[in-house]
Amino acid sequence: MTARVLLPWSDLAVPAELTAAYYDGQGAPPPDLDDVELYVLPYDSGPEPPKLIPRLPSLKAVQALSAGVDGLLPLIPDGVRLANGRGLHDLSVAEHALALILAAQRFLPRWFRQQATGSWAREHTRSLADCRVLLVGYGSIGKAIERYLQAGEAEVVPVASRARDGVHGIDELPDLLPSADIVVLVLPETPRTRGVIGSQELAALPEGALVVNVGRGSAIDTGALTTAVAEGRVRAALDVVDPEPLPADHPLWTLDGAIITPHVAGGSDSFYPRAKRLVEEQLARFAKGEPLLNVVT
Amino acid sequence: MTARVLLPWSDLAVPAELTAAYYDGQGAPPPDLDDVELYVLPYDSGPEPPKLIPRLPSLKAVQALSAGVDGLLPLIPDGVRLANGRGLHDLSVAEHALALILAAQRFLPRWFRQQATGSWAREHTRSLADCRVLLVGYGSIGKAIERYLQAGEAEVVPVASRARDGVHGIDELPDLLPSADIVVLVLPETPRTRGVIGSQELAALPEGALVVNVGRGSAIDTGALTTAVAEGRVRAALDVVDPEPLPADHPLWTLDGAIITPHVAGGSDSFYPRAKRLVEEQLARFAKGEPLLNVVT
Repeated sequence: MTARVLLPWSDLAVPAELTAAYYDGQGAPPPDLDDVELYVLPYDSGPEPPKLIPRLPSLKAVQALSAGVDGLLPLIPDGVRLANGRGLHDLSVAEHALALILAAQRFLPRWFRQQATGSWAREHTRSLADCRVLLVGYGSIGKAIERYLQAGEAEVVPVASRARDGVHGIDELPDLLPSADIVVLVLPETPRTRGVIGSQELAALPEGALVVNVGRGSAIDTGALTTAVAEGRVRAALDVVDPEPLPADHPLWTLDGAIITPHVAGGSDSFYPRAKRLVEEQLARFAKGEPLLNVVT
Repeated sequence: MTARVLLPWSDLAVPAELTAAYYDGQGAPPPDLDDVELYVLPYDSGPEPPKLIPRLPSLKAVQALSAGVDGLLPLIPDGVRLANGRGLHDLSVAEHALALILAAQRFLPRWFRQQATGSWAREHTRSLADCRVLLVGYGSIGKAIERYLQAGEAEVVPVASRARDGVHGIDELPDLLPSADIVVLVLPETPRTRGVIGSQELAALPEGALVVNVGRGSAIDTGALTTAVAEGRVRAALDVVDPEPLPADHPLWTLDGAIITPHVAGGSDSFYPRAKRLVEEQLARFAKGEPLLNVVT
């Protein structure tokens, strides 16, 4: 007797103990899913795939491929396990954080503007090396960013919700901000992380400091940041903003010291091989009756 | 009896055995330099500072702050040592190489164009993680780039002029190019490195590969590259080109798959603390009569 699994990709190694059906989130799901015991949700495919969960009577486990699964919890029947995609986006987000930092420090917006007009005008730039970088949010994404920063000989100052060995608590920010060259925010959205950076914190930063956000837009008071960037006191490089999308006529878009990308840090090619490795590991565990990784409930 | 040294910066630690005069390359040099024994050349300050060398009768050593010193050799009197600035720019160039790679892989030109119009349109991007990167040129700059690439979980394939343990020879490029996602050139200009990447090599790369150059422009056949990028076969991210400056009407400037910066990889803030540390080390050695570092002649 083999167990049946529902998978988003057909190029996975499926153990002999399992049979697979496939649903990539496009069009209708396959018929006859009454015996599906493990459902790996298609990634970033809109609201339809989760709606299938309550319609699978033999379901034992759901594997999501995002890190945040709060929206799924109400759909998970009693006794069904839910595993998340924690870590699958870490490197993608870290890469984008580095891209934003280096773009700002090495003046890429200027060079791209010059490229459009064929101008070879040169200038010395800022650097990342030797910069003191407050890394606010020190989970697995923060640590992936730290590895990049250390390769570039920046000084990393880790900050987390609560102080622990070698890590500052977020309540120490007032003491840490005045000596920071760069602040990188990698915070999840919680009531405690809303508005962590407001006008007071921006005023505490040294002139010309760079504020980077790859966590959630709500961590920064957008109005206060817009004012500080417009006055030339700080620079900003943001993949997330509050609200999203940023309205087309928002003044932050066109300020000289601002770089904005449209919440694309997590969505890059590096996700897929990591997601497929996790799913194959989970299939092997499921086939042998071993506990799944990343179980949330 | 103290020895006299001529320095470009006044904020250096000068050993008690030495007295210092200062010349930053702007305006006229100070008078009465007949007893100067060590001259640290001001950095990137035009043709005047080197002309002082033959006019210092007590000179024993010259410290240049650039890695290449070929242009200085004819000015150095017999018996005067010349030390170069090898390594001072490594991290600056590595940072810029990473900025170019990540800008191309994470679609920064697209996001910057969208920023100008306030557009939030999103798209999955390429990534650096998992990419196979040929690092052509494996000196100290190449190794600084490698540390960044390893932090980002790219696969690094080092290539140097001659094969050695764990390093491919440049004659193996025809075998290596077909599996490369990214080629990073960090080659000095020599007769052997001219045109290392021409139409044949570009044709050997996989569709969509990225060619990055932070070494010398002459390593790439600009015409062949322009054709390959125009045809959409490869992408390019270049800090150096042949010729420099690239003429304002050159078609490469405005091709979709090309990123061009005006030879600014070496010139960033990270240079100064490293240069000052080297000069202070050299002053300590000079004061004690110990051999200088980085001696070329």
